[in-house]
Amino acid sequence: MKIVITGAAGFLGQRLARKLLQRGTLSGPTGAQERIDQIVLLDVVPALGFEDPRVLVIAGDIANPAVVRQAIDGNVLSVFHLAAVVSAQAESDFDLGMRVNVDAARLVLEACRSGGCKPRLLFTSSVAVYGGELPEIATDATALNPRSSYGVQKAIGELLLLDYTRKGFVDGRVARLPTVSVRPGRPNRAASSFASGIIRVPLNGEEAICPVASTLRLWLLSPRRAIECLIGLHDASDDALGANRIINLPGVSVSVGEMVGALSAIGGDAAVRRIRWERDDAVERIVGSWPAAWDTSRAKALGLAGDSSFEAIIRAYVEDDMR
Amino acid sequence: MKIVITGAAGFLGQRLARKLLQRGTLSGPTGAQERIDQIVLLDVVPALGFEDPRVLVIAGDIANPAVVRQAIDGNVLSVFHLAAVVSAQAESDFDLGMRVNVDAARLVLEACRSGGCKPRLLFTSSVAVYGGELPEIATDATALNPRSSYGVQKAIGELLLLDYTRKGFVDGRVARLPTVSVRPGRPNRAASSFASGIIRVPLNGEEAICPVASTLRLWLLSPRRAIECLIGLHDASDDALGANRIINLPGVSVSVGEMVGALSAIGGDAAVRRIRWERDDAVERIVGSWPAAWDTSRAKALGLAGDSSFEAIIRAYVEDDMR
Repeated sequence: MKIVITGAAGFLGQRLARKLLQRGTLSGPTGAQERIDQIVLLDVVPALGFEDPRVLVIAGDIANPAVVRQAIDGNVLSVFHLAAVVSAQAESDFDLGMRVNVDAARLVLEACRSGGCKPRLLFTSSVAVYGGELPEIATDATALNPRSSYGVQKAIGELLLLDYTRKGFVDGRVARLPTVSVRPGRPNRAASSFASGIIRVPLNGEEAICPVASTLRLWLLSPRRAIECLIGLHDASDDALGANRIINLPGVSVSVGEMVGALSAIGGDAAVRRIRWERDDAVERIVGSWPAAWDTSRAKALGLAGDSSFEAIIRAYVEDDMR
Repeated sequence: MKIVITGAAGFLGQRLARKLLQRGTLSGPTGAQERIDQIVLLDVVPALGFEDPRVLVIAGDIANPAVVRQAIDGNVLSVFHLAAVVSAQAESDFDLGMRVNVDAARLVLEACRSGGCKPRLLFTSSVAVYGGELPEIATDATALNPRSSYGVQKAIGELLLLDYTRKGFVDGRVARLPTVSVRPGRPNRAASSFASGIIRVPLNGEEAICPVASTLRLWLLSPRRAIECLIGLHDASDDALGANRIINLPGVSVSVGEMVGALSAIGGDAAVRRIRWERDDAVERIVGSWPAAWDTSRAKALGLAGDSSFEAIIRAYVEDDMR
């Protein structure tokens, strides 16, 4: 089978591609595992470091209809649509956010629809679709009140994917991701970038800035578990999923103070001292509008597992990314 | 001041235009009532029957950027965006629904934004944004789970309007309308068209089809009150509105059986006998997914009033439209 990953040069995209190449199979249209013959890696910059003959790299603008049609032709059976402009960037460049998070999502949906073989389309969404006055544990019945352009754009993508699925144009699944931490590499332009930075940077011996109060609670998932959940949700059967195709992935709910405590257990006081506390209202406003936890029963029923603790998340980072 | 009504040749658009011409004023940027100097009536067909020198009729496609820019120039202080492809039509012609209900809404938002004077933009939404498992009374905290393309497209319009308002691009207000009944004139392509037809047509001595069970509950607002609410919401102050710019307008919750009872009280048994009961699953599925009532406390706090009973709604129809 032929599959496509958008945003494939990004951190999650690369990791997903590696994992799929290693697995070698994915659930096909009948529900049985099928051999992956080709993975198209689409991103605005080329996804580097893949020597596998099954990989086709396409570098191009995801908001360009011709590029999307080139990547998602009538033979594609599965699409992982990860390409996005992240939260702080979508807030500062409204038009770019609309172009990538809304217009490009529509192009992907239309390319899947016009292919005619009703591909599985896994779309990543975010804690940022929630906002405003939230119950302690958000649920499927909780109104979305996104307080950022990113959250609005992701909520629009969700609505479209559900409607395209209901109409039978695609077989869509939405993975609502907690904040993914600990991300390796350089900071990105997500408002939640610090949730990785305050762990990664001090462990690497450098100084990190924490822009929020230590009491702020976050809802976190490790990259390792996030990738497993994306593949697991892709492979879930129609019957197991039911009509509601939006799945809130599992997370761990921790305060920033508790995160620092876990850092201390692994990196010692020296690591903790490398955090400089410097409040940033814009970051705090966005991240503070997100839920600190949500109901994960549907994810669990599908066999999608989160992390056991934030300390386990840091240990996974050390294992996967610090060597 | 200069104002624009889109969908102005439609039933609500025409009625709104007449009411505004008769009032002669509307709340301006400072909050004070200002004289209406010009009303631009935009629709795909010319809005006919307006002899008033304050009226400028533009016939053009609302999904054409040049048409929208022509209507909404930098001098426009208020826009009533009523243009829409209605529910059953958006369900049968998905692409037309997306084009008018999503793309054109974005053009209207962008035209308001680029004008630079942050116009008031009143956007009409619908019961159809709700769906799925609903509490007895839907509230602002109830998740939207639209079960029709129309509902999805209206929910997207709401999200965009809220974000454009949050960003300071427009001063947006969303009027979520109950099903408007009794509509005069010919049936339209809304799934809820029967909610007017089963009253209007028998009162006019002809046979009407009722496509749903008599136990189905609807949430209704008369055209007369709908227009008053649209103007009232337009004129509401920022302070009174607060951050949540979506207002669920008042309605009366009645079963189809109770509607027929009210028809009997006004048109007699002869009128009731003119209803032929012939179930239509597609209509029942869409209309049955809508809430039978929602919380109206915020509308009432803004002074927006609904009808006292469905019998009062029929009497208003007889008074306003049957002469």
